[in-house]
Amino acid sequence: MYNLLKGKRGIITGALDQNSIAWKVAEKAHEEGATFVLTNAPVAMRMGEINALAEKTNAQIVPADATNVDDLTNLFIQSQEILGGKIDFVLHSIGMSVNIRKKIPYTESNYDYFLKGIDVSALSFHKMLAIAKKLDAINEGGSVVALSYMAAQRTYPFYTDMADIKAMLESIARSFGYYYGLEKKVRINTVSQSPTKTTAGSGIKGFGDFYDYADAIAPLGNADAASCADYCITLFSDLTRMVTMQNLFHDGGYSSTGVSDVVMQKMGIEEK
Amino acid sequence: MYNLLKGKRGIITGALDQNSIAWKVAEKAHEEGATFVLTNAPVAMRMGEINALAEKTNAQIVPADATNVDDLTNLFIQSQEILGGKIDFVLHSIGMSVNIRKKIPYTESNYDYFLKGIDVSALSFHKMLAIAKKLDAINEGGSVVALSYMAAQRTYPFYTDMADIKAMLESIARSFGYYYGLEKKVRINTVSQSPTKTTAGSGIKGFGDFYDYADAIAPLGNADAASCADYCITLFSDLTRMVTMQNLFHDGGYSSTGVSDVVMQKMGIEEK
Amino acid sequence: MYNLLKGKRGIITGALDQNSIAWKVAEKAHEEGATFVLTNAPVAMRMGEINALAEKTNAQIVPADATNVDDLTNLFIQSQEILGGKIDFVLHSIGMSVNIRKKIPYTESNYDYFLKGIDVSALSFHKMLAIAKKLDAINEGGSVVALSYMAAQRTYPFYTDMADIKAMLESIARSFGYYYGLEKKVRINTVSQSPTKTTAGSGIKGFGDFYDYADAIAPLGNADAASCADYCITLFSDLTRMVTMQNLFHDGGYSSTGVSDVVMQKMGIEEK
Amino acid sequence: MYNLLKGKRGIITGALDQNSIAWKVAEKAHEEGATFVLTNAPVAMRMGEINALAEKTNAQIVPADATNVDDLTNLFIQSQEILGGKIDFVLHSIGMSVNIRKKIPYTESNYDYFLKGIDVSALSFHKMLAIAKKLDAINEGGSVVALSYMAAQRTYPFYTDMADIKAMLESIARSFGYYYGLEKKVRINTVSQSPTKTTAGSGIKGFGDFYDYADAIAPLGNADAASCADYCITLFSDLTRMVTMQNLFHDGGYSSTGVSDVVMQKMGIEEK
Repeated sequence: MYNLLKGKRGIITGALDQNSIAWKVAEKAHEEGATFVLTNAPVAMRMGEINALAEKTNAQIVPADATNVDDLTNLFIQSQEILGGKIDFVLHSIGMSVNIRKKIPYTESNYDYFLKGIDVSALSFHKMLAIAKKLDAINEGGSVVALSYMAAQRTYPFYTDMADIKAMLESIARSFGYYYGLEKKVRINTVSQSPTKTTAGSGIKGFGDFYDYADAIAPLGNADAASCADYCITLFSDLTRMVTMQNLFHDGGYSSTGVSDVVMQKMGIEEK
Repeated sequence: MYNLLKGKRGIITGALDQNSIAWKVAEKAHEEGATFVLTNAPVAMRMGEINALAEKTNAQIVPADATNVDDLTNLFIQSQEILGGKIDFVLHSIGMSVNIRKKIPYTESNYDYFLKGIDVSALSFHKMLAIAKKLDAINEGGSVVALSYMAAQRTYPFYTDMADIKAMLESIARSFGYYYGLEKKVRINTVSQSPTKTTAGSGIKGFGDFYDYADAIAPLGNADAASCADYCITLFSDLTRMVTMQNLFHDGGYSSTGVSDVVMQKMGIEEK
Repeated sequence: MYNLLKGKRGIITGALDQNSIAWKVAEKAHEEGATFVLTNAPVAMRMGEINALAEKTNAQIVPADATNVDDLTNLFIQSQEILGGKIDFVLHSIGMSVNIRKKIPYTESNYDYFLKGIDVSALSFHKMLAIAKKLDAINEGGSVVALSYMAAQRTYPFYTDMADIKAMLESIARSFGYYYGLEKKVRINTVSQSPTKTTAGSGIKGFGDFYDYADAIAPLGNADAASCADYCITLFSDLTRMVTMQNLFHDGGYSSTGVSDVVMQKMGIEEK
Repeated sequence: MYNLLKGKRGIITGALDQNSIAWKVAEKAHEEGATFVLTNAPVAMRMGEINALAEKTNAQIVPADATNVDDLTNLFIQSQEILGGKIDFVLHSIGMSVNIRKKIPYTESNYDYFLKGIDVSALSFHKMLAIAKKLDAINEGGSVVALSYMAAQRTYPFYTDMADIKAMLESIARSFGYYYGLEKKVRINTVSQSPTKTTAGSGIKGFGDFYDYADAIAPLGNADAASCADYCITLFSDLTRMVTMQNLFHDGGYSSTGVSDVVMQKMGIEEK
């Protein structure tokens, strides 16, 4: 539409199906003139779907387990070859909690699962950045975005250990952002997105009810995946080259709203 | 460059001279396809300079004292007439502290000056928004940005009462953002900008030294006025339509950096 | 009970009646061995009630309009005479919004009322501190607490302009805390208290409903006035002498809870 | 001194030697009338020193590896037997980063070490809480404090992966605080302490220089271990029973100070 990413090369993780935020980011990045590689864990890939996206966006697919340093090294090397140069933007959209999947209450978290969640959802971000930096695979002024959620700041019972893992993810963005910024002016931010009706989100018990509640609090309503993709595009563009080490709420105003009149009314009506 | 603001109509306050952030915003907004009205307080206008900007950007000038409700009402009415429709974006870049100008220490602040500073620098924002809302002068989904500074969160001795005033400004953005978001999906945010070598900024005692210090802490260095303008453009665009009630740091990573190696070295060397 | 404030001299503002947080602070401070002066605006004083408190706590009353520099000067001079030495602790519990009283919607705020609210509720804090500092009326290591509310961070529709005023109040605590800390090790903090069933709080439309909602979110429930007083005592004591320039949430965990199971259930049940 | 903890029973981890914050907490808790068990990892215990502390404070020692669920279970069971009832307060003062010890740059972090640091320094906190809750070992209204550091919010180059780990620790305090608060009114907070000249702190490269820098920024100077212990005592007392899920800065005002005049002068002088 605007050619905001014209000539830019990217790596986009986490495009599972058309409900994924990453899927929308890929579509928008393509529209804005970028070329990119799509990647996902071999076990998570729904080949039919991601192939359709790849075809639609002229992208190639390089499978990679985001916890595996060799896979990630291969991802960055191959992506540069495929795209014909260094990378300008990266989307990290990877999150998985076995404790959530198995509906284990937070106070009874299994620690092997907890560490697995950390490795997949937070350390994978550090690994991607470390490998990119080691290979000098990202262009000066490049932009990296990881998707986060506000549970990193406030407790949501249904989010269990992912809250703590997202807090670590956001911290990694700051920590690594310092070094990569200093050396290569690469900026690293997290986007703290509204609850979104993705396939992953829908798997969380209680998520549906909460979606409606958040929607009733946010003055603009919940931000959807498509608008999140738009926002990511601005962060990948050259117009935000001095924004780094930030956690940016993309949530229709939810994070700054204590309570809305709508929720007050709903709670009030009920009491009578 | 990208036509990000094609067809959009705006009001830009505070373009004093070519060092002003608002000046750069006007230039960029023009490049991006917007039409707009420039405004400033009659007493603050440097007619030669603002005329040159107006000419360069095909803008008209509507003087307005931002503390004066009648002036602001006229501003919004005239702007819609001049631009041929409702307003899509507004930049509030207005700040003035008599206590700073007169070099009055914070602990001895004069309260008439303090209230004057509040009226000019914070309530003016509320007034603009209230009048716009009353006149229904801003298009659905429009975007309003006010420029702020991190003294709203942490104390900088040289910033005296403007710290407290910026804290109020940022709160007004949240408070009004709730109502205007709910009713018209208008988003309201503040951009917390690096210390910037504007004519206004340079008037603050100790500012020069601090500029260098902040520059040595921020991994990307201080963000300049031009990059701030770029960032404002993204916030005025349709790509950020779900971002509201936020205070957004545009500071090269300064706000998330505790200390940098450069500053550590400077402090260390000195001690020896 | 613990003699935490044995030998300490204080000034306590805002004890309107026995529902006031300040009232509870006076009772607890007395129990903990402090002597103090009670003060309130002449127009706000309910003489019968405050006299009973004064008698119960062996305190004297010095009326003072907190917006009046002469009154405040007299307050600090007289208090030192009455108590026989410099002041160790001060409680600022003063807040008033004409816009709220008159039920004026936030977006239509009257600016004279807004400025009045700022003067009474925020600048009064600066004035007290400025006069205390000028008179050197507070002992080294003394402690000053102002009561605030979370609307300074997130929007609550019923709180209108007090949100912005509390944001300024919290900023004044930081700003002044820097100078007074540096010079006299006086610490200045704000306590951001749960919605509390005070006479003042009850005057806010929608407050009752909100009280229940907050109570249902906070894991410990809303903090009441008596527990707030306990917390203030710790902040006045010597055990917190390195805590300054902070906004401290005293709210049963509300501020860090995104949503509770109870609220989720209430919202969910209602929808069916 | 005040009998603030009279009759209370506690568990104190991390008292390595007399420079430890935990050591000071033990001394103060004893002075304030508490009885408690001291614990540390078998490999970390300096038996001569901790025995001296135990003797001085009439405490018993129960060694426990904080990553080991069996050890922690034993700790809570034995502690209740030794102390004659349920636990009222717990101090978590456990942190260790192999990446820091081995002076590995953050961007080259070893992931086995990273996970080890997480397990020792953050998950150990979850484990302690989970076991305490399962055993119902903490009295209603009990208080748990973990020591943290501001690197969880802002990047300090010398702190490497402990920044991300502390961010997770603080999140665990919020997450667990929700559940434990709801069920048993147990409050869980983190204290974000000034850089402190402990034996552990001194092991971090660049720490000494940074200590002086932070001291020059904080209006009250850095908070020392003894004042931190005082603060922890208030948090263990009944006077703070509604404070939970908070990260509380105990830092002489450092966290709210952007820059101090002293640092400005040092930086300025150097430039000439």
